[in-house]
Amino acid sequence: MPIITLTTDFGLKDHSVAAVKGALYNELENVQIVDISHEISPFNYTEAAYIIKNAYHNFPENSIHIIGVDSELTPENKHLAIYLDGHYFICADNGILSLISSEIKPDKIVEINIHNKFERKSKILDVFISVATHICRGGDLDVVGKAIPNMNELTHVKPIVNQQEDQIIGHIIYIDNFGNVVSNISKKLFKSVAKGREVLISARSTKFKNVYSNYSDAINFNVPRENREMEGKKIALFNSSDFLELAIYKSNPLSVGCASSLFGIKYLDTLTVKFL
Amino acid sequence: MPIITLTTDFGLKDHSVAAVKGALYNELENVQIVDISHEISPFNYTEAAYIIKNAYHNFPENSIHIIGVDSELTPENKHLAIYLDGHYFICADNGILSLISSEIKPDKIVEINIHNKFERKSKILDVFISVATHICRGGDLDVVGKAIPNMNELTHVKPIVNQQEDQIIGHIIYIDNFGNVVSNISKKLFKSVAKGREVLISARSTKFKNVYSNYSDAINFNVPRENREMEGKKIALFNSSDFLELAIYKSNPLSVGCASSLFGIKYLDTLTVKFL
Amino acid sequence: MPIITLTTDFGLKDHSVAAVKGALYNELENVQIVDISHEISPFNYTEAAYIIKNAYHNFPENSIHIIGVDSELTPENKHLAIYLDGHYFICADNGILSLISSEIKPDKIVEINIHNKFERKSKILDVFISVATHICRGGDLDVVGKAIPNMNELTHVKPIVNQQEDQIIGHIIYIDNFGNVVSNISKKLFKSVAKGREVLISARSTKFKNVYSNYSDAINFNVPRENREMEGKKIALFNSSDFLELAIYKSNPLSVGCASSLFGIKYLDTLTVKFL
Repeated sequence: MPIITLTTDFGLKDHSVAAVKGALYNELENVQIVDISHEISPFNYTEAAYIIKNAYHNFPENSIHIIGVDSELTPENKHLAIYLDGHYFICADNGILSLISSEIKPDKIVEINIHNKFERKSKILDVFISVATHICRGGDLDVVGKAIPNMNELTHVKPIVNQQEDQIIGHIIYIDNFGNVVSNISKKLFKSVAKGREVLISARSTKFKNVYSNYSDAINFNVPRENREMEGKKIALFNSSDFLELAIYKSNPLSVGCASSLFGIKYLDTLTVKFL
Repeated sequence: MPIITLTTDFGLKDHSVAAVKGALYNELENVQIVDISHEISPFNYTEAAYIIKNAYHNFPENSIHIIGVDSELTPENKHLAIYLDGHYFICADNGILSLISSEIKPDKIVEINIHNKFERKSKILDVFISVATHICRGGDLDVVGKAIPNMNELTHVKPIVNQQEDQIIGHIIYIDNFGNVVSNISKKLFKSVAKGREVLISARSTKFKNVYSNYSDAINFNVPRENREMEGKKIALFNSSDFLELAIYKSNPLSVGCASSLFGIKYLDTLTVKFL
Repeated sequence: MPIITLTTDFGLKDHSVAAVKGALYNELENVQIVDISHEISPFNYTEAAYIIKNAYHNFPENSIHIIGVDSELTPENKHLAIYLDGHYFICADNGILSLISSEIKPDKIVEINIHNKFERKSKILDVFISVATHICRGGDLDVVGKAIPNMNELTHVKPIVNQQEDQIIGHIIYIDNFGNVVSNISKKLFKSVAKGREVLISARSTKFKNVYSNYSDAINFNVPRENREMEGKKIALFNSSDFLELAIYKSNPLSVGCASSLFGIKYLDTLTVKFL
């Protein structure tokens, strides 16, 4: 059964997500529709880039990923269908695949050109639905668009290494459900520059000298519970997506606070990694 | 595979939605359950009316739509099963189908009367689940209830045209995920009264002279980007559901603000359309 | 088709839930994945206990329930797979099944010990996914872990009856989508202690002398609507999960307020039931 995933900034209250699902079920008898996220901040490409990068590769090969973030067709916002890393992506040409395509070259990019070929009851992602349906039925990308060599990239999702190769400057690209702040510095880049040296990470006035691999690695379970630094401990780690993250152990944004609120670090703030 | 959709004010945190799904899967081996929305404001019929109207027709014919908003059975709140426009609806008689039934006459309305015929483990929408299961198995509506001629209507979801036919007074019936405000004035009604005349739309102190068909139609892409009025531009348009909407181009309610916050327009506020 | 449910504190914005679903679909061609809740407050076992207790039994027998709340493996937080009441549960040993296991003895508890047997692309609930896949394929729990006699319990989810058996002291364990406050006092316990006596329920400065079985039982529909105490009426009732709940009739936390805000009652506050 083919899988179609949906990633949008539509939210879950409006009828939009259901309209898209209804239209897909109307065309396809056998399809598995899976929500990735509908809570992307309105028009926020960077959040969408982070979420789609971390979600897509878990799905079976040849899954189709519809991304409805800032997807209104304009002269400056073309529609694309892409085959990359064994997955199909249908999205606007606004850089949402930057975090994936900077590491993995797309096998095929087509600029969709079938906008005038049909009319639908609902205008919500209508062309994306038609393209997804076409792919589900085994259709070729060349039928729905014209091959192009490149797509737009988001520049600020790329961290910068200095000439001396002893410093990486990155940005906070995502704040997660626990209020932990995630940078655009990957474990792979970090290790390749670190070459085993000691590190000093700083963001605003907060500093870290250790980078853990799991939240609980920061906790010393040999110390009796009553003397142990635990809930509320500040830690830097490579998160489950292998990006450098600043976190509070077992934080709760709604009660005790979280990394974002306690460190005063916000979306797109700078993070500096210095190797000593 | 039959499709059952769910629209409720249960929210997504509580166990209620899952309890309903579990009970349906317990009865039906082959069924596709699709969420329309569970974020309807508590007991808000108007929001439910707007959402169900815009969602249902995208689904395949003979889909079954369960609406769990203010659905507790009381002497004044009967339970209905309705066949309308090729779709089944199961809901309380509180006017939720007003926006649909004002345009399309129901083929059949039955007042459900099987409340004492069974007992379930969970009381959440138990009768609606039994009726949906019955329909899925090919059962007739007459078996679960008594045919009645009419159902209740919500009066305030109907806009009013003045005698001179040069003015429509409507209300804001929905505020969407982007903070745009949606009126109960349909494109069809607007066009039928406008007869090609110029228009002045006013709501609070905000006025509009143009009504666009898409968000991006309001943007002049021939002007260089740096001189272009774009993000933040105030626009009136017929939205993807063909209702008159007041919007901010690429608004974000969480950061720069949105139509609702910037225009100071709230749910059920008045909107006046004057033809000149 | 086997059913796997998901209950987590991951929220619906992050990629985590989709990563888990993608990984499951990657392993299992035929599976029905159902969300119970992903809005559990971070690391809140009590909320998770209340939600899982009220949701699981609606699903078909042999459904598999994955609970991803505080599930990082540590020396003090083992991973369990449990067969109880005809259902499988996969969770950390942090007491989340307390509300179920206090009434129904588990048939089997195993401490999962296959953590080093494989590597996954994503670390999110990786071991739970492997165990669920194993069970779906008909595998035995003994293959994935070592049988143990007991699991941890949450003590504060158990209400206390005094020696004279004329008083129950409970706690608020959940605040629902409508802002109604739910205690840990079950209808069964209440009835067994009450023995038909009159009752006085108090929480903060709010008192109740009647306990209803439905919200609308508190309303007198014989009184004309304009003189009737209705929206906003304070009521105590056994909710659809048969727990003692304090509620406001047709409350809306976003506008008129709700039981929690109007009574000033918060999570884990005390509730006293006195029999006279």
